[in-house]
Amino acid sequence: MLDRKDFSTKANRFLAENNLEKLTQLLTEQHPADIAEFLQELDSEKQGIVFSLLDREKAALVLNELDASTISSLLDTLGAERIAEILDVMPTDDAADLLGEMSDLLKQRLLGLMELEDAQDVQELMEYKKDTAGGIMTTEYVAIREDITAERAIQVLRETAPDAETVYYVYVVNTKNQLVGVISLRELIVADPNTLIADIMHRNVIRVNVNDDQEEVARVVARYDFLAVPVVDDEGSLVGIVTVDDIIDVIHDEATEDIFRLSGTSELPADDGDIYHSVLVNVRSRLPWLIITMLGGLLAGRILKGIESQLSTVVALAFFIPILTGMGGNIGTQSSSLTVRGLATGHVDEGAFFQTIIRQAAAGLVMGVLIGTIVGLVAAWWQGKVMFGVVVGLALVGNMLTAATMGTLVPLIFRKLGVDPAVASAPFISTAIDITGLLIYSTLASLLLSYLV
Amino acid sequence: MLDRKDFSTKANRFLAENNLEKLTQLLTEQHPADIAEFLQELDSEKQGIVFSLLDREKAALVLNELDASTISSLLDTLGAERIAEILDVMPTDDAADLLGEMSDLLKQRLLGLMELEDAQDVQELMEYKKDTAGGIMTTEYVAIREDITAERAIQVLRETAPDAETVYYVYVVNTKNQLVGVISLRELIVADPNTLIADIMHRNVIRVNVNDDQEEVARVVARYDFLAVPVVDDEGSLVGIVTVDDIIDVIHDEATEDIFRLSGTSELPADDGDIYHSVLVNVRSRLPWLIITMLGGLLAGRILKGIESQLSTVVALAFFIPILTGMGGNIGTQSSSLTVRGLATGHVDEGAFFQTIIRQAAAGLVMGVLIGTIVGLVAAWWQGKVMFGVVVGLALVGNMLTAATMGTLVPLIFRKLGVDPAVASAPFISTAIDITGLLIYSTLASLLLSYLV
Repeated sequence: MLDRKDFSTKANRFLAENNLEKLTQLLTEQHPADIAEFLQELDSEKQGIVFSLLDREKAALVLNELDASTISSLLDTLGAERIAEILDVMPTDDAADLLGEMSDLLKQRLLGLMELEDAQDVQELMEYKKDTAGGIMTTEYVAIREDITAERAIQVLRETAPDAETVYYVYVVNTKNQLVGVISLRELIVADPNTLIADIMHRNVIRVNVNDDQEEVARVVARYDFLAVPVVDDEGSLVGIVTVDDIIDVIHDEATEDIFRLSGTSELPADDGDIYHSVLVNVRSRLPWLIITMLGGLLAGRILKGIESQLSTVVALAFFIPILTGMGGNIGTQSSSLTVRGLATGHVDEGAFFQTIIRQAAAGLVMGVLIGTIVGLVAAWWQGKVMFGVVVGLALVGNMLTAATMGTLVPLIFRKLGVDPAVASAPFISTAIDITGLLIYSTLASLLLSYLV
Repeated sequence: MLDRKDFSTKANRFLAENNLEKLTQLLTEQHPADIAEFLQELDSEKQGIVFSLLDREKAALVLNELDASTISSLLDTLGAERIAEILDVMPTDDAADLLGEMSDLLKQRLLGLMELEDAQDVQELMEYKKDTAGGIMTTEYVAIREDITAERAIQVLRETAPDAETVYYVYVVNTKNQLVGVISLRELIVADPNTLIADIMHRNVIRVNVNDDQEEVARVVARYDFLAVPVVDDEGSLVGIVTVDDIIDVIHDEATEDIFRLSGTSELPADDGDIYHSVLVNVRSRLPWLIITMLGGLLAGRILKGIESQLSTVVALAFFIPILTGMGGNIGTQSSSLTVRGLATGHVDEGAFFQTIIRQAAAGLVMGVLIGTIVGLVAAWWQGKVMFGVVVGLALVGNMLTAATMGTLVPLIFRKLGVDPAVASAPFISTAIDITGLLIYSTLASLLLSYLV
């Protein structure tokens, strides 16, 4: 296998020379991920030529790595029959993911062209929600019955293993197909050929339910360092397995989703790069939160309009508006990011609701008193009035305490309500805090105005 | 194996009844991750009792999952000799990580008590930087020479495999220990016993360098769906492997680090929960960025003090300060989060520097014109002066364009300079944008003041 840059250079040369024999050989040795990357850089005619050179197994692996636009262009060039043939040899979970992104018409057409058994498996998988264990599992696993001997089990494996995505774990089921045990390939091989599987298997297998959220599945796999985890339905029947390579994708996508949400960039199809390439998609994903910020900003303006006379009497009150909103926004963003990530990693326990809030509020108070004192002193010095410094300082303490509390409270409440806590994004939190901060500030300024002039 | 809650209940009961026989049996069947969790809830005396019941292999797996405080309490209770014995059977990468967190004195003492060969392996591993391939690799892999037969290879594996962390891939080296090929266990077993390994192995193995950053290693493993990747030194000699379970930890830790940095929460030991439990640690991690925000806020105040006369003439100028800083901060945070995550996931190409900035600036301009027009109209209406609306609207457009550009530019520049782009955090970006935004606003207000009164 070549380095992916060398591969691309060589493949392009063979393609230009129309040396399909050498190109075929080159493709045989290269990893599907690299071939997919190479294909995506070609025009649709050349895509068709190169893709036709792949054998069916390799074609399936490459197809799984391609983006939607390349797949639809291959469909046009090669025809649905050829694609359906490839879908037949693909792991069922990958085939279901692929078909899931196509139009209903095309999906039905391709399913109709696939072999009946494969089509049924794929159709069943497509019925699970995308972000559940059912949505990411494959139905190609190795399972044996508990009432057979080790010798017979090895024979069964020889017959079924080529189809299975992973053979590191062999799952054991009873007559009702319920998951009752697990055994490693190595244990099976060293066992006495006549032993019953039931006597050598490990019982009480760690499993996930088919409706469990994919984040929960990822947590189980990460916790136990599994290469795969079995998936059961509500009756305890084995319906699939989730493999570690899919878990890596889940962890990646969930982190990206959290980071985007926290910064106030809305929902996007996971791992879709469009937001980086289309100005329109970019604007559309960000605008909703910006409009909320705008409305919040106008409300903030309205609050300041309410103390117009105080502001015109003591113009210096305006000087400290940016520091007030800035500190509040930043403390709020810190708190909400910490809380959202803490909930995702398990460091923040939903049960310890009040404890978490009190700790974060305490941190906010400590930081508020520290920063409030410094800025208050500067304000008193600039204006030559102690009371002015007191107003600015107190407003900062109040604002930072509220900010730390709200930044922690809001994600926790969202979690309790079943909403993704990452929706408590920077724009949302900092706008809310701007408003409460200015309310505190304008109230203090109004009450203590006589001391300020 | 029991569910972890049932296990904990049962184990506690056996412990209370002093039924060590049943407890030992229970421990034998349970996963090390669960035993570690259980241990951490006990007092140090009980920790010692339970830990002593584990056999050495299990003890090593449990030790690897424990937090620093439990380990140090076990050291006190059981003595360094017993811990050194356990370190001997631990995978070398885990032992190196564990020792890496101890004081130099304790580290030297434990290394001295370990078996010479293990101690040397561990010491070598500790010399690699923590976040490189060398820092996360294990030296326990399966390697065979290219000039032996398949039959002999299987024999070698039987002798060495119990020590190896993973046997899914068998690496092939030449007489200089340079990595020259790879072969799967299955291929080895089905091969003619007399074939030379050199004739059946795959050449050009994908590998990482021992000094590669762990993020790069994670990208390779994720791209190719590997269960392990070989690590070579500058001479191409095989020095270790990185397994997928360690990659999952890397992906987790890097995402947490990015989220914390983006929100302006400084460096912390990866996966350490202290920030959630100690108010002091929490304040210390956040204060540096808040002090920068404070200094920025004071500078913003200074800028507004510069247009004191304009502000006292047209008080309404103050009303729009929060919306100006709010919009700028949020656009900036969105842009920097998108860019930082894009660099991490590979969606943003460092090479396409100018293209990326122009696209993000274009998005900023579109959003700026949209929001600027709306807010400008509101401002004109409130104040009853068209020109006032123009000043506010133009300031917003300028601010949002600058914000989108800076939010993209700063992480890209940091990456070029070899600094983690996530240091371009929300507090940093939004403070910088507050200042430029207010400079634009106050310049416009000064220039056009005659039209505002």
